[in-house]
Amino acid sequence: MRWPQIFFLFPLLLPAAPPEAELRALMDAKQQAWNRGDIPAFMAAYEKAPEITFLGASGITRGHQAVLERYQKNYSTREKMGKLTFQIDEIRALGTDTALLLGRFALERSESAGGPSSGRFTLVWKKTAAGWRIVHDHTSP
Amino acid sequence: MRWPQIFFLFPLLLPAAPPEAELRALMDAKQQAWNRGDIPAFMAAYEKAPEITFLGASGITRGHQAVLERYQKNYSTREKMGKLTFQIDEIRALGTDTALLLGRFALERSESAGGPSSGRFTLVWKKTAAGWRIVHDHTSP
Repeated sequence: MRWPQIFFLFPLLLPAAPPEAELRALMDAKQQAWNRGDIPAFMAAYEKAPEITFLGASGITRGHQAVLERYQKNYSTREKMGKLTFQIDEIRALGTDTALLLGRFALERSESAGGPSSGRFTLVWKKTAAGWRIVHDHTSP
Repeated sequence: MRWPQIFFLFPLLLPAAPPEAELRALMDAKQQAWNRGDIPAFMAAYEKAPEITFLGASGITRGHQAVLERYQKNYSTREKMGKLTFQIDEIRALGTDTALLLGRFALERSESAGGPSSGRFTLVWKKTAAGWRIVHDHTSP
């Protein structure tokens, strides 16, 4: 009776399909949350875990709460948050439960609030019990 | 006869240990290759695949050959290559066959060759038949 083994192994041998639709929907929700000034909702895409990381020009911020507080500190008013637009360049599966998303952001913002800003990011995603979540964000100019 | 199923499932339920020693050894080899002016050996840490990506200030470079050529173009002499030092800040398993490495680089270089340079990077690794290989590199100032 060898069939059960075949059934268990089969999914491991298939090339993983990138979770294109799920990640695009999460990125849309993330952008919309930012543009209505809701940083906690923007943070919903990040795994609620102490080991997640954000790598920016000032170094590594570690943990969901610390990343949230970093955003709240750096973008303390609606004017500083400006209007955010994401552009997705690539979504790639790394395995059945890990994916990579490469993209760009642009922030329209008044000069008094810091002026416009733009850059590129790498987002590393993991499929969790709650759905796909960001476990690492590297954002650079 | 249910044992075979248990044996197949068991490894999937264990938390993955980060491949600390393997990645540190590969980073050492990468740094040493650079410092003897050997870009092809430096590139040995990257998967030989058309889908690997390098994300830098000028955008995305895709494919092992294109990433190699980018390095050869930007660092066309030993003087331009300077002396490279890596610092590893974190190695984290994302699953059994994917890992994340966060670090910093410093390039000592003469003013005539472009001057010193430094920055941060995210390296995404995949366990391939040939060993752990970089599938994505995001490097920023």
